[in-house]
This record gives sequence, structure tokens and C-alpha cells, in this order.
Amino acid sequence: MTTTLTEIAANKCFGGWLKRYKHRSTSLDCDMIFAVYLPPQAETQKVPVLWWLSGLTCTDENFMQKAGAQRIAAELGIAIICPDTSPRGLDLPGEHDSYDFGSGAGFYLNATQEPWKTNYRMYDYVTQELPGLVMANLPLNGRESISGHSMGGHGALVLALRQPDRYSSVSAFAPIANPSNCPWGEKAFSGYLGAYRGTWAQYDACKLISTRQSRQELFVDQGEADNFKNEQLKPEQLQAVCAEVDHPLIYRSHAGYDHSYFFIATFIEDHLRYHAKHLFNRAE
Amino acid sequence: MTTTLTEIAANKCFGGWLKRYKHRSTSLDCDMIFAVYLPPQAETQKVPVLWWLSGLTCTDENFMQKAGAQRIAAELGIAIICPDTSPRGLDLPGEHDSYDFGSGAGFYLNATQEPWKTNYRMYDYVTQELPGLVMANLPLNGRESISGHSMGGHGALVLALRQPDRYSSVSAFAPIANPSNCPWGEKAFSGYLGAYRGTWAQYDACKLISTRQSRQELFVDQGEADNFKNEQLKPEQLQAVCAEVDHPLIYRSHAGYDHSYFFIATFIEDHLRYHAKHLFNRAE
Repeated sequence: MTTTLTEIAANKCFGGWLKRYKHRSTSLDCDMIFAVYLPPQAETQKVPVLWWLSGLTCTDENFMQKAGAQRIAAELGIAIICPDTSPRGLDLPGEHDSYDFGSGAGFYLNATQEPWKTNYRMYDYVTQELPGLVMANLPLNGRESISGHSMGGHGALVLALRQPDRYSSVSAFAPIANPSNCPWGEKAFSGYLGAYRGTWAQYDACKLISTRQSRQELFVDQGEADNFKNEQLKPEQLQAVCAEVDHPLIYRSHAGYDHSYFFIATFIEDHLRYHAKHLFNRAE
Repeated sequence: MTTTLTEIAANKCFGGWLKRYKHRSTSLDCDMIFAVYLPPQAETQKVPVLWWLSGLTCTDENFMQKAGAQRIAAELGIAIICPDTSPRGLDLPGEHDSYDFGSGAGFYLNATQEPWKTNYRMYDYVTQELPGLVMANLPLNGRESISGHSMGGHGALVLALRQPDRYSSVSAFAPIANPSNCPWGEKAFSGYLGAYRGTWAQYDACKLISTRQSRQELFVDQGEADNFKNEQLKPEQLQAVCAEVDHPLIYRSHAGYDHSYFFIATFIEDHLRYHAKHLFNRAE
């Protein structure tokens, strides 16, 4: 371990270790915290990693506290890393005024508009800077899969669709699948990327699928009682575009389940086993 | 469902339902909230219940969000009920001044001192009023086991030791095992029960064990890296008194584990399976 990462917390959990690290981010120009669960296997060998991207208002902590994923990660021998959801410690004008824009709502993109463009570069942070740091400092073998929830489900789909050969597998819970056409996405993209919608497409899973650049299978779980489903998440649009361009999609709709972590906790085991299948079977 | 309980939240989880109810408590003279997880089996039959008593600063929510117990409860067909940890909505003098006394710190006892004695009657609430309410209003079959963490581990042990024939089984995570002889317990018992230590024994697991009133087996898990172990929890005293009077005790010490919910999450499955064995095998 170099001094690049400062360990700020460590809890033993299912035989492995949940740790939180603080570091100076050059891409975001602020101090950031992320969480990593290292399964017991990581004490003697390098392990693959599942990136988990969280939703609006979350930090690195929510998934680790509420999803119950460590049990299965420990069994399978997979590390999990949860980045934060936006730059922190800044006080840009209006940054903390709403739950769906600014702090806690980075949308995993590189902003182009003032005053956001200097710091709000979460796409670079989660695809380049943070992977570089953890691969150099933690017992990881370089294989990566990615998943996330809501805004983080959007992030997972977008990151995988834009880098078709990078992740062994990708999944999402209740992702914001078509942000160009929902209030959350329109607010975020207008603010971070500007009014011209042509630049939005690079961060919109449905638009990216329609380009046919990636053929990677998408695994998506959605609760039918999710209050945000129709207005914000647009799973029907995701299904439609996948059908249109024949993009491989496993889409599961779950009666009675809402948008909460109780939904994620119920189905996270299926996702981890799906990712394990791809992480451990991928050709060297 | 009578109008006695007002449902304020419902989340589908592992095929069952997590619900939060609000009700007027007569024993505490205030409005209270509790959480219940009803496993899928409860839709067609009455099920047994595990009472979970939480620790200092907790509400009805912590265990349900962080322990990952619903998965196993759903498999086993056991309901879980989490009461709150103190009366709420009052503003008694000094009630909110510290994390280890007053609100969030009811210690599952009936206070005898002013200004606490009117409202701080958590022993009556969790042994009588709340069980009466839930047995009348929820699909429960009357069989009960009990568990808890820290202050709630103290509560679970005390409630079971004082009512030897009531609970099918009892367990605890890192309980405050000898509160008469630790700072948390001395502060709470002095404030709620007064300076005379003779009255404290009725709420002290070690003292109750030494009376030999109960012969019920106790199942206790303790983390060796728990910061509170030596000063507040006194597991050695628990082991010593059980050995002295030959009280049945399963005591497990876990290297590296601390006082957090990550410790509880790791071992809650063992506790639920232990309770299930007793809840379903108990003679009618």
C-alpha cells in the first residue's frame, strides 16, 4: 500500500474486510472517499472486482450497509468497490440545493458547463483515475464487472456500452435508462452538459444501444411497484430499443418491489452470481 | 387489522413484507413506531416471531436495514419484530443530551425515578403491551424467541432470564452482560432506578443468572476486536457466572470482529437457524 490511499475505516465482515479509503482525486480536484469489500480470498490471491455505482443522494456507504452483498462476495471471491456519487467538499454555487443535481448527483459524466466542468468529471474518475489507483494498491487481478442502482444503474450501463470490451459483465437495478427523456436526466444533462441535446446521447443508455457499438448482454432488474418507474426510469424504452436493434437483454420485472435497498438486497445474489460466471470464465 | 396500528411504510423484501407501524403506547404514554418483517409464509399461515432488541442510538430501522436477516427469515418462515429503543416524542429534562441515556437508550427497564418513571417503561412495553398488540393484529402463532445487540443484547438476556418459560430461545450479540458494573449500565441504572444497587439486580443478566431461576441456554456471539468489550460488555463476567452456577451457555468469540452491524450481519444466519430449531420444535 502506497501512501496514496489513506485507510479511514476497517470492519471485518464475512471473513473479509470492508475498508474505506480517502485520497486526493486529480480528476475531480478534491478529496474523495470510496469503500471496498475484500473477500477472504484476497488475503492470498488477487481477485476480480465488481464496481457498484450508487444512486442519487448516496455515498460510498449505502450499498455496503444495506445490500447484504458481502456474504455472497465472500463466497465467490469477488471484491466490490463503491465510489462516491459526486465530488465532495466543494461549495459551488447551488451545489447543495437539490437532491438530484450537484452533490450526491454526479451522474457519472464529465461536465462541460460552468461552474461544474472543473470538478464534475465522474466519468473520468470511475473509468480511469479510481481504477488506476485501486489496481495499483489493492489485491485485484484486473478483471472488472459493473453494476449499479437508479442513477448508478444508468452509470453502469453507460460505462459498459461506451467501453464494450472492458467489463466482463454489466447489470443494473432500476436504472435511469433513457435520461435524455426524463425529468432527472433532463435537469442533470442541461446543467452539466448544456442545452444542446446532441451531446447528451453519449450518456444515455438507450441512445448508446441504438448505435450498435456494443453487443454486450445487459442484465436488468426492475420493481413493478417502483414509484419512479414510469416517469424517470423508462424500462419500456430500454426494452424497445434492445428489441429494435436486437441487443441482448435479460430484463426481469418483479411484482410488488419498489425502488428501495430492500429490492436490491432481495436480488443482489442473482447479480453477483451472474457477474462471477463472467468474471471467472472470461478468456485470459 | 384493527385501527390500533397505523401502517406507515411497506417494502416487499425476499418475497415477504417489511412494514412499519405507528401506535399509541399506553405503557409509555407516547406514540411509538415498530418494524415487522413478515415472511412469505405469513400470507397463508400464522408464524412464530423473533423479537430483536436494538442497541444505543438505534430505532426500529437499523436492524432491518443492515443485518440482512430477512433472507433467512423468509426461508425459515419466521417473523421479526424490532421495537424502538426508548419512548419518543417527549422532551423530558436532559432526555436528548447524551447517546447513552434518555432517548435511544431505554435499557428495556421500568424506571422508578423522576422524571423518567412515567414514560420510561420499556420493560412493560416490550414484554406486555407490544406483544399483546401484535399477537392480536398480525399473523403470529404465539411462539416467541428473542435476540438483540449490545444494550439490546442486555435486554434479550434479561427478558428471557426473568421469564424462564416464555421464549423458545434467547441469543445476543455483544450484550452488556453485567450492567451494574460498567459505565453505560451504572449511568443508566443510577438515572432510571436510583442510587441503591439492590434494585439494579433485576436488570442485570449476570445477577439474574446467579439466582438460578432460569436454566435456559444462552447463545452469545462476541467480537474480539469490539472496542466496548472490556469496559462495557464484560463477556468474561458472563462466562464466569455461567460456569459458577453451571448455567448453559454457548459463547463464541470471533477474532477481528468489532461492535458494528457488519459483525451482526456475518453471524445473524446462525442465530436465526438456532431460534428456528427451538421455535419449530417446541412442544405445543
